[in-house]
Amino acid sequence: MNKGQLLYEGKAKRLYTTEQEDILYVEYKDSATAFNGEKKAEIEGKGTLNNQITTLIFEKLKEHGIESHFVERISDNEQLVRKVDIIPIEVVVRNIAAGSLAKRLGIEEGQPLKRTIVEFYYKDDALGDPFINNEHIDILGIATKEETDALYELGLKVNDVLKPIFEEVDVILVDFKLEFGRDKDGNVLLADEISPDTCRLWDAKTKQKLDKDVFRRDLGNLTDVYKIILARLGGK
Amino acid sequence: MNKGQLLYEGKAKRLYTTEQEDILYVEYKDSATAFNGEKKAEIEGKGTLNNQITTLIFEKLKEHGIESHFVERISDNEQLVRKVDIIPIEVVVRNIAAGSLAKRLGIEEGQPLKRTIVEFYYKDDALGDPFINNEHIDILGIATKEETDALYELGLKVNDVLKPIFEEVDVILVDFKLEFGRDKDGNVLLADEISPDTCRLWDAKTKQKLDKDVFRRDLGNLTDVYKIILARLGGK
Repeated sequence: MNKGQLLYEGKAKRLYTTEQEDILYVEYKDSATAFNGEKKAEIEGKGTLNNQITTLIFEKLKEHGIESHFVERISDNEQLVRKVDIIPIEVVVRNIAAGSLAKRLGIEEGQPLKRTIVEFYYKDDALGDPFINNEHIDILGIATKEETDALYELGLKVNDVLKPIFEEVDVILVDFKLEFGRDKDGNVLLADEISPDTCRLWDAKTKQKLDKDVFRRDLGNLTDVYKIILARLGGK
Repeated sequence: MNKGQLLYEGKAKRLYTTEQEDILYVEYKDSATAFNGEKKAEIEGKGTLNNQITTLIFEKLKEHGIESHFVERISDNEQLVRKVDIIPIEVVVRNIAAGSLAKRLGIEEGQPLKRTIVEFYYKDDALGDPFINNEHIDILGIATKEETDALYELGLKVNDVLKPIFEEVDVILVDFKLEFGRDKDGNVLLADEISPDTCRLWDAKTKQKLDKDVFRRDLGNLTDVYKIILARLGGK
């Protein structure tokens, strides 16, 4: 499968066409961004790490019956995915208070929530990806009620699979962000990536942050902690 | 019924005990505040107007089967209400995009929404009354699922009653904020006030703002427009 034309360049990835209409080429960049693009850096090796970690996670999800756009990893920093139209909703699943939730509700970071919660954010850089509810989704017309319910359920299902996988290797899955797309038949499919860029992952014993908060909060070397996650998930 | 001890002073009202344990004395102040208290002014006559308007609205709601804490108006700026424990959730009902919704979703102010929507905000000054969803309410433990559903349904019910009442007198009910409390038996009861301080009200023909946005946005004399609302609702 050959890389065709550049279709889209995001903050962390580039998408290219291939000779097959429903398959895209994803190139993971070494760019790190935070705070809606206000903080930026190039971090050598980040793209490779996220490509590997996302691959491992999408494969594990597939083993547990959760399909995604992922087809196969084809190089250090490239993978093939099924082409989908991204639904402009970020689905955030939280097990423990951290980040914007801790700030919004005045809960101390690290406090376990009495239940897993799901939040929706409107994927719109110009608006700063605002937090929205189901009725906002409806009036924006960005997803049907059935799709919105599916995003919610898939968010919880991904959590049910990933939480114990991380627990087994002494990592706490604090929270994570998912994106979904519609394939050509209108099916909702897990898309984007699942990596320390999109999850909060803490060491179970030391509570060390093993995710992008290391970059956001200047806590050390990002690739060092991403390598820990890759290794614990069985990658090399 | 005599005014007892000051129980609570809010931005727009003072609450006093009475000799009857389950009845409180509410004094409407002339204070206007906006932007979480950042903008403040004393506006003579505002308290009297809101006391009268709230009275008319709570009476109309009662005629339509919606109970509130309101008992009776006893002077220009005072009324008696049933004592409730306020649930710290602001219930915002919207028919037309305006204010924070227009900003959050990037919708032009004045655009009718394809359906009425209900939003919940966590009533917490220190946090800036953040927008929340049902699951936040659950993890905060500030209302049960049944109460949350009741707030939602009561929000829509109040809208169903008030929208046509305002329409009849050429006023558009753009959006409004409700607060609720629990009485001593745990029943959820509409509380606080419903006035141009808590509603967006536009003249149906000219689209002139007849509400607190006049103060928020420095659009003229606040009591002049509150007097229009009072008169249209049949008050004097």
